[in-house]
Amino acid sequence: MKSGAEYVDSLRAVQPRIFLGGRQVRLLDDPTTLTVVRANARVYDLGLDPRHAAVMTAVTEDGRTVSRCLYPPRATADLEKRAEMAVLTSQELGTCNYRCVGQDALTALAATTWEMDRDLGTDYHRRLMDHLTRLQDDDLAVSGALTDPKGDRSRRPAQQDDPDVYVHVSERRPDGIVVRGAKVSQSGAYAAHETIVLPTMAMRPGEEKFAVAFAVENGAPGVSYIAQYTPFTAERASVPEKYLGNPLYGQRETCIMVFDDVFIPHHRVFLDGEVRYTGRLVSRFAKTHRMNCGGACKVGFADLVIGAAALMAEYVGVHKVPHVIEKITDMIRISETCRAATVAAALKGREEPPGSGYFLPDDVFGNVAKLAVADGFWDIMKWAGDIGGGLAVTMPSELELENPATAGYVRKFMKAAVPAEERLRMAKFLQNWCAGLHGAGTWHGAGSPQAQKMVLYALTDREAKKDMARRWAGIDR
Amino acid sequence: MKSGAEYVDSLRAVQPRIFLGGRQVRLLDDPTTLTVVRANARVYDLGLDPRHAAVMTAVTEDGRTVSRCLYPPRATADLEKRAEMAVLTSQELGTCNYRCVGQDALTALAATTWEMDRDLGTDYHRRLMDHLTRLQDDDLAVSGALTDPKGDRSRRPAQQDDPDVYVHVSERRPDGIVVRGAKVSQSGAYAAHETIVLPTMAMRPGEEKFAVAFAVENGAPGVSYIAQYTPFTAERASVPEKYLGNPLYGQRETCIMVFDDVFIPHHRVFLDGEVRYTGRLVSRFAKTHRMNCGGACKVGFADLVIGAAALMAEYVGVHKVPHVIEKITDMIRISETCRAATVAAALKGREEPPGSGYFLPDDVFGNVAKLAVADGFWDIMKWAGDIGGGLAVTMPSELELENPATAGYVRKFMKAAVPAEERLRMAKFLQNWCAGLHGAGTWHGAGSPQAQKMVLYALTDREAKKDMARRWAGIDR
Amino acid sequence: MKSGAEYVDSLRAVQPRIFLGGRQVRLLDDPTTLTVVRANARVYDLGLDPRHAAVMTAVTEDGRTVSRCLYPPRATADLEKRAEMAVLTSQELGTCNYRCVGQDALTALAATTWEMDRDLGTDYHRRLMDHLTRLQDDDLAVSGALTDPKGDRSRRPAQQDDPDVYVHVSERRPDGIVVRGAKVSQSGAYAAHETIVLPTMAMRPGEEKFAVAFAVENGAPGVSYIAQYTPFTAERASVPEKYLGNPLYGQRETCIMVFDDVFIPHHRVFLDGEVRYTGRLVSRFAKTHRMNCGGACKVGFADLVIGAAALMAEYVGVHKVPHVIEKITDMIRISETCRAATVAAALKGREEPPGSGYFLPDDVFGNVAKLAVADGFWDIMKWAGDIGGGLAVTMPSELELENPATAGYVRKFMKAAVPAEERLRMAKFLQNWCAGLHGAGTWHGAGSPQAQKMVLYALTDREAKKDMARRWAGIDR
Amino acid sequence: MKSGAEYVDSLRAVQPRIFLGGRQVRLLDDPTTLTVVRANARVYDLGLDPRHAAVMTAVTEDGRTVSRCLYPPRATADLEKRAEMAVLTSQELGTCNYRCVGQDALTALAATTWEMDRDLGTDYHRRLMDHLTRLQDDDLAVSGALTDPKGDRSRRPAQQDDPDVYVHVSERRPDGIVVRGAKVSQSGAYAAHETIVLPTMAMRPGEEKFAVAFAVENGAPGVSYIAQYTPFTAERASVPEKYLGNPLYGQRETCIMVFDDVFIPHHRVFLDGEVRYTGRLVSRFAKTHRMNCGGACKVGFADLVIGAAALMAEYVGVHKVPHVIEKITDMIRISETCRAATVAAALKGREEPPGSGYFLPDDVFGNVAKLAVADGFWDIMKWAGDIGGGLAVTMPSELELENPATAGYVRKFMKAAVPAEERLRMAKFLQNWCAGLHGAGTWHGAGSPQAQKMVLYALTDREAKKDMARRWAGIDR
Repeated sequence: MKSGAEYVDSLRAVQPRIFLGGRQVRLLDDPTTLTVVRANARVYDLGLDPRHAAVMTAVTEDGRTVSRCLYPPRATADLEKRAEMAVLTSQELGTCNYRCVGQDALTALAATTWEMDRDLGTDYHRRLMDHLTRLQDDDLAVSGALTDPKGDRSRRPAQQDDPDVYVHVSERRPDGIVVRGAKVSQSGAYAAHETIVLPTMAMRPGEEKFAVAFAVENGAPGVSYIAQYTPFTAERASVPEKYLGNPLYGQRETCIMVFDDVFIPHHRVFLDGEVRYTGRLVSRFAKTHRMNCGGACKVGFADLVIGAAALMAEYVGVHKVPHVIEKITDMIRISETCRAATVAAALKGREEPPGSGYFLPDDVFGNVAKLAVADGFWDIMKWAGDIGGGLAVTMPSELELENPATAGYVRKFMKAAVPAEERLRMAKFLQNWCAGLHGAGTWHGAGSPQAQKMVLYALTDREAKKDMARRWAGIDR
Repeated sequence: MKSGAEYVDSLRAVQPRIFLGGRQVRLLDDPTTLTVVRANARVYDLGLDPRHAAVMTAVTEDGRTVSRCLYPPRATADLEKRAEMAVLTSQELGTCNYRCVGQDALTALAATTWEMDRDLGTDYHRRLMDHLTRLQDDDLAVSGALTDPKGDRSRRPAQQDDPDVYVHVSERRPDGIVVRGAKVSQSGAYAAHETIVLPTMAMRPGEEKFAVAFAVENGAPGVSYIAQYTPFTAERASVPEKYLGNPLYGQRETCIMVFDDVFIPHHRVFLDGEVRYTGRLVSRFAKTHRMNCGGACKVGFADLVIGAAALMAEYVGVHKVPHVIEKITDMIRISETCRAATVAAALKGREEPPGSGYFLPDDVFGNVAKLAVADGFWDIMKWAGDIGGGLAVTMPSELELENPATAGYVRKFMKAAVPAEERLRMAKFLQNWCAGLHGAGTWHGAGSPQAQKMVLYALTDREAKKDMARRWAGIDR
Repeated sequence: MKSGAEYVDSLRAVQPRIFLGGRQVRLLDDPTTLTVVRANARVYDLGLDPRHAAVMTAVTEDGRTVSRCLYPPRATADLEKRAEMAVLTSQELGTCNYRCVGQDALTALAATTWEMDRDLGTDYHRRLMDHLTRLQDDDLAVSGALTDPKGDRSRRPAQQDDPDVYVHVSERRPDGIVVRGAKVSQSGAYAAHETIVLPTMAMRPGEEKFAVAFAVENGAPGVSYIAQYTPFTAERASVPEKYLGNPLYGQRETCIMVFDDVFIPHHRVFLDGEVRYTGRLVSRFAKTHRMNCGGACKVGFADLVIGAAALMAEYVGVHKVPHVIEKITDMIRISETCRAATVAAALKGREEPPGSGYFLPDDVFGNVAKLAVADGFWDIMKWAGDIGGGLAVTMPSELELENPATAGYVRKFMKAAVPAEERLRMAKFLQNWCAGLHGAGTWHGAGSPQAQKMVLYALTDREAKKDMARRWAGIDR
Repeated sequence: MKSGAEYVDSLRAVQPRIFLGGRQVRLLDDPTTLTVVRANARVYDLGLDPRHAAVMTAVTEDGRTVSRCLYPPRATADLEKRAEMAVLTSQELGTCNYRCVGQDALTALAATTWEMDRDLGTDYHRRLMDHLTRLQDDDLAVSGALTDPKGDRSRRPAQQDDPDVYVHVSERRPDGIVVRGAKVSQSGAYAAHETIVLPTMAMRPGEEKFAVAFAVENGAPGVSYIAQYTPFTAERASVPEKYLGNPLYGQRETCIMVFDDVFIPHHRVFLDGEVRYTGRLVSRFAKTHRMNCGGACKVGFADLVIGAAALMAEYVGVHKVPHVIEKITDMIRISETCRAATVAAALKGREEPPGSGYFLPDDVFGNVAKLAVADGFWDIMKWAGDIGGGLAVTMPSELELENPATAGYVRKFMKAAVPAEERLRMAKFLQNWCAGLHGAGTWHGAGSPQAQKMVLYALTDREAKKDMARRWAGIDR
């Protein structure tokens, strides 16, 4: 398994075509893309840290120790470790583990290709296993891509004016396929070695060309990345790193990943036209990703926010005021409710499909984890903003402390139980959480809540409940 | 193990002194006390039902099959079964399993007497085990009692004007102790064979006489029960049973259990003056009871309410209206979030104290389960009331259907996709849930939410979170 | 204007055909119907109380002092007084002012008949004015009726299997019309002298026979009342009045009002077939009723609940505990937000139709008042239940204080800073609020929240907001 | 009255000492400080716009037409206009009207100096009136300053290690006073001609030197401004203005306003040591500012957010989906509830002190307006983020549209019912609202909610409510 430094080295051979803020940038040079590289490097290093080995690594059936980022769960204990990994990396990074979507995409593919081979006699699963072994042995960083641009959402893929708003097969060649389209809101794709691409939703008969799943190498001809640009991007380009809200790892960085007639050789194709299997492929991805990204990941974030709010309260001497304690307790309640739903999702996970050897979390519990955090994180932001005070949105730059004309004033007026430096640093950290991208980001990550509600309604055996009610009301059918 | 009928038979030997609505009543004759008897009988019958054996029974270390109601958990699998039992009995009864508090009190006592014997050389644990074996072999119904009247809550027990507002030892005799006081809000105590009495909270040095735990027989001299009286009590006394909202099992029925100098022989005393152990005894009780009564039990109730609301929507043809689906989904979300927290509490349970062989649920997850349901059940009532329509609070009596002067009108105007009878019956069932005792009852059961919040704050390692935040903000201590 | 006693006297001439709990009852004899009579009598007495004259009475254009209950507002000051009347009667009764719906129905009719006469040359408005003058001069109690049984809600009135599920004209005679059908959830109709009947919703061409508005006398041949029956009905029939939760005035009592071919002479008919005017008639009713019943009325209730909760906290010595203060403050916040919306609705009211001289509240503010209270009252119940403690649902009957066997125990164990009697009385009062009909009742009164949301969406000039957003985003159309 | 251009011209004579991001900047040159200048200029222009004259101007008792920004209300109609001005400027600016705090500070001073002169025989009110006439005649931009740095919040001002954390008189001279300290979170102070400074809270005997109110000129010796620095500051310095979320007027810009021994001549001092009047001065400020900044201002913001969300839904074809309509309706509900509370606060305003001729809003309604918006704006952000989609936080820079390498891709993949440019522009506008400073800013503006709760609890006549409850429970005192 690679160290962080080895991962960074390995990137020198990759030449992703990345655009940011209107110009092309180099992955290892641009301060924003560099945060993604650093986050990945940190995850690699955690994998080598003996304290975290149980969580960050797994042992394959043939005895190889591999990164858990490349290991489809084979037991409920794996699911639990998977969720713990999400908590840990969130605590350590304060942003995405950018290998998270890729891992969950591999898990969904493992289960579904196994099923397709069994049902259809295809050899997708063998292909995938061969590919996975290579990924494991080279310990590659793999991202995952689902969300198409979608165009007009009231129309199906084949009805769009421009078919490119859904990724699709544009040409078939003897040795592989050519794909066109794009995936949006792709977390950290440009710093991965490869990306696993899945359809964005269940496809129907007649939509075969949109039913395609494959692995694509970073730097493959025709692939471009157009990075997100937010106020935080500008700030990182303008201000010394140490004065930023999340100095090393920054914001969740995403991009539009463009496929402009990209050739994919057959051995990297894992579904091609089998529309009937797209629904379960996507729903298996959602099942595992809602537990990990939807639930567990935000528990790790919440730990950081709660810690920061508790410190800010101490700094100004209000940490024993009852309403402050009540608010911190409420943040804990929200976070631990999500953690509980995540734990339940993992421990009540099941082999799926039966006989496959792959395990997926309980779907109901994964969905309620996501729903709990979607609303809950906005509340956490609210309470953190309350305790952080106006300072979290009105603070001056820490650069003032380097300016003789203002340093004295800022030291004097921003001083609290700790020096001004520390208070400003913590306020900036809180600003990053409660006055930025995290509310909407958490809401939509792993699918927006309306999707979870639809699944929850569909998963519920409402007839059984109606029967119970009838029995209780003394009604014989 | 007893059948329901055998349990009822066994009660003929018990002569509880019960008062209700200002007069003395007989347990097996009064329509309200009878609902408690029936609920217990149903729980006994469930224990003999092969479909439910795994949940309702347990096998002791010496190979006896006993009711799970009398079995302190010895593994996380037992905790999970315990929680499933709570869901099941709620679904089957629509009210309390009245043996629930007793069971959780026995569990807390088992762990704590084991610890006391180990630490202090007492023989409380052996006494308890002997007693428990008798309870198991006779398969007795055991309730549990914690809540003292408390008088002025700003004062400690020893500072009250009247010491009787906390149960205490009033006299010591060679063969036992004499206790005085009362326990309030006691669910179903008068229909149990015995009650396990614990202190209501952690006692401090100087409060030794209030630090007492024991088992008392129903019918023991000096014990009286003053039953709760609500509008539902009056209705049950006035209306044919089949026309009531929960025809067979009624409301959660409680009483004030009075101890007017009751003699307790030594072999029934399990803690006597060891103030240092009262805090952990009570907190162990809370730990298990918040999972069971706070969380799991209400999941079973929610199943019934969701089923009833879904039926009411169908009856009037609005079940496909988006806002109705949204509300039913929200009820499901609330219920499944509680279930998830319960499952997590059970599966992450731990042996406590280590070496004792007894298992208790995870405390954080048990507390969030209770907090989730406390607010959530009010929301469930709200949505059920929305879907049930005004009818849930304005419906006429079903007795109108027996009155020739009105039956035709009611049949005509209350008819929907089902006959008026069925619609009224279901509306009455919903009335029972959304226009009665369940909101406040669920809120306070297993302790009111402020207690859970205090525990949650205390249990959280806030220093660890602060350290993480400091590290993220780049602050070296 | 009548006194309460005169009102009661006047009822002796009325012989309403009332059924309750399966048998016929006499209005002045049955303990439940009597609560409605008492509430009305109290409202009559308030009208004669000089302290409340400004609120309870109005002076007509021709100089007669009449009950405000019979006075369509002619200025925003009238609207404000109307809302204040709702607060006052709620504070004084703890239940409905049963003349409230009738008043708002008269207001809606006044505006709409004026418009019809102007537009269509009808003489509905003159008829109504003549009738209103009679009502004012005799100071009659008038209720209002809108809600039809509705049958299958996915179908229009004319599509129902049984047309009777919507009130309609069944026959035309030279001197009047004959109506059939029923109105459900009718608050206090059986104790009014007359009822004003409006359609339940906007009717469309082809639904002319369902488009009918009229006044009907209590006791008219063919009219029957089938009263609601709840646990509170049973309790009132079983227990001395003084031991009830709202001793004198009880619960909001409703009935199904049946029209079994009831003849209505022309001079009592105020709309007959003019489908085009039904929508605005109903929406004008909603406009005024959402302010009064939806908003203001519940502010008066909230005053009582807040007062009771504050007392219960004092009784047990927790009134200075921060979380208790926080909860009481939250109840105040909810109540005052509703009051604010009500005040705004009144003071921003407008003449409608212009030139008519009649004033209606601002629709947006009336709707948000109702929406605020619908959710808010459930929260008030929750907090009241929290502070009231388990006692609010587990208390014994006060009759125990008359039983020598239990009186001593109850006095001892229920004593707090006040004697047991007072604490139990207050707990019973709270039970009435937080463990009964008020949550669902408040939700549906003046229309369920989904109706308010639809109105709010429709009333909003979304295009203007979109234009602002476009301008801000720098987009020229 | 000045035009916007004249205001900008007048600033050329002012030389504020402003620091931003670690270096000194010039008010009219720096892109961030320029947004404040532009916002003020726009407010000046609105004052000259005939369509807005009724709202933006007022006529003094001696017949001069002045800016409403410099006019203490003298009737409830003025209060209503004042609140409407807040809505209007928010709609027009999408950020602060930076003259808002100054206006409310002048109102509070007018009422309180009148009272002091009456009670104490001082001539503060005459001084203030003379000063106000000058301000009106020159039509100056006046900001207001209250919030001190406060140091350790568990200690009073005189107990702080450094007295400078509260503004205070450091020296007395024959012709005036010298003040030291700072005010934090000062909205737009550096672009005002003057700032009105009030104490941050009620001072007590012994704290006389902290009890000081005065007017200070921008550019006065010893005054410095240290501007806030956020990611949005960096973005504005990096990106063409038209590509920003609020292109012209930006974020609410604040600063630390430092008083380093600033001389204030007597005629600019309006309170000096009269601790007894500080409480009411501050509470009068809060009373009016909670209505304006707390309530009305955010209604204008909400209009913009609702409009933007409605457009985003249309762009992707989901505007008729029920859950989207439900969310937009909820945003409307929140906004209109705040508007209602604001209207009620204005229209129920009262002369204070009686006889003074000055009017202040109703305090209860102003406080609930603020409380409604504090929680509500977070919800508005949540729904806007839901409807805006992930795009609101993951969008690329519009600069990509100027880059030939990416423009085609972005045009293709970001196209919806409108071209990519328009969709990106609107997404950026939404980003500004739902992924930035507005949640925490709105929460703390006009005081954080805990302050409103304390006021609400204190203002409520709880004894009256307790008496009502006692009467209802049938308890005679």
